[in-house]
Amino acid sequence: MKATKKQELFMQEAIRIASENIKSGNGGPFGAVIVKNGLIIGRGANSVTSENDPTAHAEVMAIREACKNLNSFQLNDCELYTSCEPCPMCLGAIYWARPSKVYFAATREMAAMAGFDDSYIYNQIPLPPLERDIPTRQLILENAITVFDEWVLTEKKIPY
Amino acid sequence: MKATKKQELFMQEAIRIASENIKSGNGGPFGAVIVKNGLIIGRGANSVTSENDPTAHAEVMAIREACKNLNSFQLNDCELYTSCEPCPMCLGAIYWARPSKVYFAATREMAAMAGFDDSYIYNQIPLPPLERDIPTRQLILENAITVFDEWVLTEKKIPY
Repeated sequence: MKATKKQELFMQEAIRIASENIKSGNGGPFGAVIVKNGLIIGRGANSVTSENDPTAHAEVMAIREACKNLNSFQLNDCELYTSCEPCPMCLGAIYWARPSKVYFAATREMAAMAGFDDSYIYNQIPLPPLERDIPTRQLILENAITVFDEWVLTEKKIPY
Repeated sequence: MKATKKQELFMQEAIRIASENIKSGNGGPFGAVIVKNGLIIGRGANSVTSENDPTAHAEVMAIREACKNLNSFQLNDCELYTSCEPCPMCLGAIYWARPSKVYFAATREMAAMAGFDDSYIYNQIPLPPLERDIPTRQLILENAITVFDEWVLTEKKIPY
């Protein structure tokens, strides 16, 4: 879709962060911002290589910062602007954080041409655990389910 | 599969972390450990509600800690033990971190019975962006692809 003036403003900030991130050598060419009530409340740049954190994608960093600023683990009524279509990890993070809308600029196909091919991970995640390339196996242990019983019974829990 | 004695030891540590996490009120009933050469190099407890970080699942926390300890953004030759089958976000994180094996104790179905239903997110991620419940739209901008050109040309980049 064509961007409104406001949408373009926020997306250009995400793209500026991505471009700056290349120049600084901080990480991959990705940036993101979170917007609430017309204000940017979180920014994120891909910091995988500089922070030695494979989860430090731009969207995850922006979500973490916005949540800290809101003092909440939910992004109610927030919009996420990201310079590129989110990878499956970031999509999962988005579903846990629950912003109301997500906008992206570059597509996953454009990213793949630059060496960032998410399609492999998109294909792996829906597979049954035993059929994935990273072997994922259940160890049968009698007490595996006990913690869930403890959780159901505890009065200390905060549902999320 | 039936656990070997060593596998049982590591998984019981993941389950102990999960149980401790309920008692402390730190977060959900999930724990994880990362093992390399027979040693635990990272531990993680779900800290979503205490840290106001929706990405702070046990697996993500363990991956972050292990990577910091290894001074690397890759978990080569590492095994991840998690008290429960990973959610799609954590699976994405696992594919980016690239441990060699993943073991889980409780299944996603057991987790769903305790109120943690990942099947919704598993179903949403493979959908085309426009068909997802969280509206995900491309904003068409001329310079969306420019950062990838910059990335391809820069000599500063560290591939990941």
